[in-house]
Amino acid sequence: MTVRRGRRPGAPDTRATILAAARTRFAAHGFAGTTIRAVAGDAAVDAALVHHYFGSKDDLFLAALELPVDPRQVLLPAVAEGIDGVAERLLGAFLSAWDDPELQPRLVAVVRGVMDPAGSKLITEGFLPVVLQPVGQALGIDRPELRMSLVASQIMGVILLRYVLRVEPLASLPPDQLVATYAPTIQRYLADPLP
Amino acid sequence: MTVRRGRRPGAPDTRATILAAARTRFAAHGFAGTTIRAVAGDAAVDAALVHHYFGSKDDLFLAALELPVDPRQVLLPAVAEGIDGVAERLLGAFLSAWDDPELQPRLVAVVRGVMDPAGSKLITEGFLPVVLQPVGQALGIDRPELRMSLVASQIMGVILLRYVLRVEPLASLPPDQLVATYAPTIQRYLADPLP
Repeated sequence: MTVRRGRRPGAPDTRATILAAARTRFAAHGFAGTTIRAVAGDAAVDAALVHHYFGSKDDLFLAALELPVDPRQVLLPAVAEGIDGVAERLLGAFLSAWDDPELQPRLVAVVRGVMDPAGSKLITEGFLPVVLQPVGQALGIDRPELRMSLVASQIMGVILLRYVLRVEPLASLPPDQLVATYAPTIQRYLADPLP
Repeated sequence: MTVRRGRRPGAPDTRATILAAARTRFAAHGFAGTTIRAVAGDAAVDAALVHHYFGSKDDLFLAALELPVDPRQVLLPAVAEGIDGVAERLLGAFLSAWDDPELQPRLVAVVRGVMDPAGSKLITEGFLPVVLQPVGQALGIDRPELRMSLVASQIMGVILLRYVLRVEPLASLPPDQLVATYAPTIQRYLADPLP
């Protein structure tokens, strides 16, 4: 989805130039090691223009990942109702994006892209702090970094086996059965006492 | 670990030729679609010579993956004592290989190698039937294919986050804490009623 508001006719490639600079810098330096100012410098534009096109650093990062949906808009409503039953709601929201036949191929492409060593930092230093840690914070759970990395370890495995490698019978499991199967695991990682 | 018994001095590259042919054929046709006879044909040797060097098709497949350890020797002793507490024993065995500083870089290399589309069949049509399904059969559990794919979905996530992407705090979690954290999940996937 391309945001075109306010773009000047004389600079048709500015947005693409900024995005390419952001992608390179996030991949090389991770999320924490990247600033809007540095991306602007690489793209030879003013920092204000980066903010104008992309908003915050979080927004720029998610745009650089080229996700077909904003994962914050998918996941955060599921946590608004609190910790009770949150795993079922999170899994339902997750499946609503990943089981969508239009979104799925593009999501798989993103996952394949971050699997290689150059892309690894986009997950470890980007996706986790920008998307998963806010979920933990919104829930107000103890040890949020450990709990969210446990959740990520189960969800990444589902993404890999169900959508990327298409392992049966997991790839064909009906969504409601998948939610019922994984919800106790995710709920335990989020809310139960941990060793 | 190279098995050199019975190799004739006059054919130093025969074993390597067979292995290269096996790797290409398993990657293109998967485990089920590959026969010892076809690999022998590709390598222009007699099928008996393939058996001589590598044993069964299962053995040839694991040799083609170039794993630094035989996963059957790591996992199968853990299931010999039966279903009670098997998750803890399996996780302990898994960590004994993956946390070994000598084995870990070679295991990570194998995982990276099978992540690309050409290598995917090595996991879906090879590793699961050769390594994981025998674990399910040895345990005598109901719905072994579903249960073992659930187990694989959690273990692959741990491999990815702890060893490949090195996500903290999961990457630094002490082994006994990791076993205690994941054992209830694995035990439920293996032994509890499923939806």
